[in-house]
Amino acid sequence: MAQMSNKQVVATRHIAGNPIQSDMDLRTSTITLQLPPEASNAVLVKNLYLSCDPYMRGTRGKDVKRIFYSFDPDSPIVGYGVCKVVDSKHPGFKKGDLVWGVTKWEEYSVITLTDSLFKIEHTDVPLSYYTGLLGMPGMTAYAGFYEVGAPKKGDYVFVSSAFGAVGQLVGQLAKLMGCYVVGSAGSREKVEILKNKFGFDGAFNYKEEQDLDATLKRFFPEGIDIYFDNVGGDTLEAALLNMRRRGRIVVAGMISQYELDEPQGIKNLVNIIFKQIKIEAFTVFDYYDLYPEFLETVVPYIKEGKITYVEDIAEGIENGPAALEAMFTGRSAGKQVVLVAHD
Amino acid sequence: MAQMSNKQVVATRHIAGNPIQSDMDLRTSTITLQLPPEASNAVLVKNLYLSCDPYMRGTRGKDVKRIFYSFDPDSPIVGYGVCKVVDSKHPGFKKGDLVWGVTKWEEYSVITLTDSLFKIEHTDVPLSYYTGLLGMPGMTAYAGFYEVGAPKKGDYVFVSSAFGAVGQLVGQLAKLMGCYVVGSAGSREKVEILKNKFGFDGAFNYKEEQDLDATLKRFFPEGIDIYFDNVGGDTLEAALLNMRRRGRIVVAGMISQYELDEPQGIKNLVNIIFKQIKIEAFTVFDYYDLYPEFLETVVPYIKEGKITYVEDIAEGIENGPAALEAMFTGRSAGKQVVLVAHD
Repeated sequence: MAQMSNKQVVATRHIAGNPIQSDMDLRTSTITLQLPPEASNAVLVKNLYLSCDPYMRGTRGKDVKRIFYSFDPDSPIVGYGVCKVVDSKHPGFKKGDLVWGVTKWEEYSVITLTDSLFKIEHTDVPLSYYTGLLGMPGMTAYAGFYEVGAPKKGDYVFVSSAFGAVGQLVGQLAKLMGCYVVGSAGSREKVEILKNKFGFDGAFNYKEEQDLDATLKRFFPEGIDIYFDNVGGDTLEAALLNMRRRGRIVVAGMISQYELDEPQGIKNLVNIIFKQIKIEAFTVFDYYDLYPEFLETVVPYIKEGKITYVEDIAEGIENGPAALEAMFTGRSAGKQVVLVAHD
Repeated sequence: MAQMSNKQVVATRHIAGNPIQSDMDLRTSTITLQLPPEASNAVLVKNLYLSCDPYMRGTRGKDVKRIFYSFDPDSPIVGYGVCKVVDSKHPGFKKGDLVWGVTKWEEYSVITLTDSLFKIEHTDVPLSYYTGLLGMPGMTAYAGFYEVGAPKKGDYVFVSSAFGAVGQLVGQLAKLMGCYVVGSAGSREKVEILKNKFGFDGAFNYKEEQDLDATLKRFFPEGIDIYFDNVGGDTLEAALLNMRRRGRIVVAGMISQYELDEPQGIKNLVNIIFKQIKIEAFTVFDYYDLYPEFLETVVPYIKEGKITYVEDIAEGIENGPAALEAMFTGRSAGKQVVLVAHD
């Protein structure tokens, strides 16, 4: 069978920290669009959308092992994507199926770790949403907010990195539940979208605030019931000073800390005693059994226009490295996606 | 009716931090051993045992408000005790009843906030236990370990301040559940008692350890499932480096932090992300509905000799100030109690 050319984005060196464009290179390989007979349980896919996510950092020596790692030198980057099945030796997938899960940054991929693949049933929503709102980040928001945060109607909710792929949904779920929601983001434009498009009760640009404790006291005169933490560091310090009794801090990430040689000491941790605070870090991988329930909840909201989502779609795999760098520097104007092919 | 003399321990000045003997004075007042008709719902008690507990610190400016405060200048110290009812205008208590709850450091007290009083039903155990093992510290251990810690058989459990009024019981409950238990304490004598009398699998004197991270790695090569934290600070830092995936840190107190001008920053907090750790601070006041269940569990264990308890009983109310200071400096050879009267 004829070989096809297969454009790939590969890491060119060991990456320590947040990747930048020059850490990656575009190469062209070739691939046969048919699995060999011995490739049992493997799937060959055409990648349609690739996802840029904050976990896609390089490693530092002290890093703890991850579920998977994105940047092996000279190999295509590993990450989430939306794909169409071209050939399958796996009984659960057939040619033409649309799936999302862990794939590689190239036009065509052979996926052997098929456990991470979810078949896409609802195709009357944008397919790219399965990299964000309806994929891993969406499930992160859903599991973290409902399962870890244990929200009640009327709760005061603070979301950091609220414009991010996870934060967008956390805020909207909280509003739909009847909570008061304030989000922080890194630009005035993002703040406006949080308030005007996502319906947050308040939002602020953390880069313009001199004293985050005072900022939170301004937005939360009664204190915070749930802080959905994506950043850690100074924002966490300020939140610890403003939690209400029996408040919950849901920790999805601490992106402010990963690039530091030594993480910042959190001085206000002792406050958890005085207010009986719970701080719980979680991973979405422990909650995927809720994925069907999640879709049943969120898909109707999308169709009714009650949940919306902002994406920043870079067109063409060759623009992947720039898109990934943009996500890490906060320049993306929404959940950062790379469009590889429309179908 | 004749007046009786009533010896009292009073605070002589504002106390900032841990109380020392010279902050307190012995005075003699008088009291009529009968409540006036208008004292509705009040109880007049004879104090038998008074309890020395770590929450009995003075205030610093920045301190958060407490359920009650022990040291108003020129007033008898407020704290937990075991008492006999001498007169009652409260329908729930009658003359001769034994009770425990919040009372004052004096021979006789009029208690108007009777909500905190529990009637003592089981009198075939040492009455002094109701200041510790069967009182507020015991309930703290029970609620924290079972309700917050969510233990499973075989869990690896670490208890700091393990020789304290709370820690003693936490360790024994964990052993009875089939957990592996290691405790830290502040002297070799205490370490020996933890191992030989309470059945801890291991114990260490934190003052003799140079590197608490290495110490915990030695005792917990597989890591820690539950850390019952009474101290915070360096011990918490080390525990954060040694937690297992989905481990739980139950925070009953952070006594290492209260005396600092600025609390210690906790650098290893970011580790909760990598292992999905939960940190939860609690107060026993949210769990007193479990008190009957607690007694049903613990009293039989005491009678069967499966749970034991070490007390340090100072005889005479005049030795109260020294006893309280001893508790804070770690010199008490067990849960510190002050015997005021045998009956």
